[in-house]
Amino acid sequence: MKGEEGRMEDEKNVTIDDLRKRMAEFARERDWDQFHSPRNLLLALVGEVGELSEIFQWKGEVPRGLPDWDEDEKEHLGEELSDVLLYLVRLSDICGVDLGKAALRKLELNARKYPVQQCMASSKKYTHYSNSKLQGESLCTGNENGNEDAITELP
Amino acid sequence: MKGEEGRMEDEKNVTIDDLRKRMAEFARERDWDQFHSPRNLLLALVGEVGELSEIFQWKGEVPRGLPDWDEDEKEHLGEELSDVLLYLVRLSDICGVDLGKAALRKLELNARKYPVQQCMASSKKYTHYSNSKLQGESLCTGNENGNEDAITELP
Amino acid sequence: MKGEEGRMEDEKNVTIDDLRKRMAEFARERDWDQFHSPRNLLLALVGEVGELSEIFQWKGEVPRGLPDWDEDEKEHLGEELSDVLLYLVRLSDICGVDLGKAALRKLELNARKYPVQQCMASSKKYTHYSNSKLQGESLCTGNENGNEDAITELP
Amino acid sequence: MKGEEGRMEDEKNVTIDDLRKRMAEFARERDWDQFHSPRNLLLALVGEVGELSEIFQWKGEVPRGLPDWDEDEKEHLGEELSDVLLYLVRLSDICGVDLGKAALRKLELNARKYPVQQCMASSKKYTHYSNSKLQGESLCTGNENGNEDAITELP
Repeated sequence: MKGEEGRMEDEKNVTIDDLRKRMAEFARERDWDQFHSPRNLLLALVGEVGELSEIFQWKGEVPRGLPDWDEDEKEHLGEELSDVLLYLVRLSDICGVDLGKAALRKLELNARKYPVQQCMASSKKYTHYSNSKLQGESLCTGNENGNEDAITELP
Repeated sequence: MKGEEGRMEDEKNVTIDDLRKRMAEFARERDWDQFHSPRNLLLALVGEVGELSEIFQWKGEVPRGLPDWDEDEKEHLGEELSDVLLYLVRLSDICGVDLGKAALRKLELNARKYPVQQCMASSKKYTHYSNSKLQGESLCTGNENGNEDAITELP
Repeated sequence: MKGEEGRMEDEKNVTIDDLRKRMAEFARERDWDQFHSPRNLLLALVGEVGELSEIFQWKGEVPRGLPDWDEDEKEHLGEELSDVLLYLVRLSDICGVDLGKAALRKLELNARKYPVQQCMASSKKYTHYSNSKLQGESLCTGNENGNEDAITELP
Repeated sequence: MKGEEGRMEDEKNVTIDDLRKRMAEFARERDWDQFHSPRNLLLALVGEVGELSEIFQWKGEVPRGLPDWDEDEKEHLGEELSDVLLYLVRLSDICGVDLGKAALRKLELNARKYPVQQCMASSKKYTHYSNSKLQGESLCTGNENGNEDAITELP
């Protein structure tokens, strides 16, 4: 696409670092760096997560792909998901965290914590997430975690 | 870096789509697609935002770059930021939203909503975000927004 | 019940003000007032909302009354609901807001905003919240609100 | 005060159970019970916590009592705090949790977990919450908890 400053970006290859640079430039141009302290940005992120939740709040469970949503609803959803992402990228930058690198590292940690073989075996015991026993037992015990952690941090 | 499946990824060029594919593969390998419904993922995202908030909760205001944090704290922060990102990417994928494309589009919308000239002018009136009048007046009126919106959605 | 200082409290008549006093005393006794700034407490509240969400995150929709949950799960739920309440009461106190009074006032505002007759009529059009048209139309237009507000703020 | 149905309520003695009854009546009159499933209410609560966060998001740290806020801002704050409270009360009711009783019980648990003598001693080591060492060490080790828990759950 053609960005506002005339640059070309491949929509399929948007990087975390592209977004970081765009947000930094956006704030600098408007003299908004003064407002972008870590906790200000964190609370702004929480505000956007609230707006995202509002979209889903009265709907009951919705199926994957949102087949019954109209285009306006999906566009609105895309905007709220983006707001969360953009504040998350900006918060990371302001904190001096390389978010892309951190995410790759976390994927590696998750892969070690939840080995495929053990997780496959344990997920087969459950036919559906509505099963009320799910929380009480370990879905995937992993290498080092007890039941509660396996459930609450299951990625 | 060397990914778990032996692939090479340039840490500086991590794309949203790379993370989307990694998360999809991770869930498929573990038979976890069954748990990844839109609202399950949304609540998991809220849980991770809670863990991110806990890192900052008793600290009072912290300066940019977190100069006084030790390496362990920063690493922990990177993990929580990543958890939010990974669930956000997964939630978008499950909802059929192209998050990278949506984020670029939102940046364009924000640029139109908060024109540089008007925002620069109004930010000069304020010397610091601790100024209590900030919320009562418009920081940047933009093209179409009243005061409240300009403040609550300031990106 | 017999409180820690030997006082009797009627469990059926726990007031917001009782909880406010207990939290203030708790903090004072431990010299924790220094940590209880408005934004510290707000972030602590967000952390507890995250823990509450984790309880529900992999369960899919759950029926009212939680018939399939065991006693441990319900007790854990009660603790997380309480943590949110206690920080909310403390945050209100620290901000100088009389939460009980504010809640009664908000109930009055909601009653005026969503008149019974109009809301009954419009809710009859919908048989279930899974109806995807719910978000697109007004559930209850109330006196002054357009569609979006009626949905997002429906109490 | 004079409630909408003409009842008198003592604003200083608003009970959790009063609010529970008022919310139940409000929903029943409008035929909204159908929307009040546990996870719908939880997401609505998250939405309100987002609105509460927006009030504080660009302000930097604010002092106790909010001395510089004008009346409109404080009224708005009271409304958002109330929205969180009302959904929390309703969610508890729908889940079959007696919130007032649970809160008293949690206060007892907290008192045992954070004994006054140990917590006083350890808080004296810290002069201010901006001290970056706070997170790394235990503020109050309590009876059974390691460092991380003492910090993240400090009430």
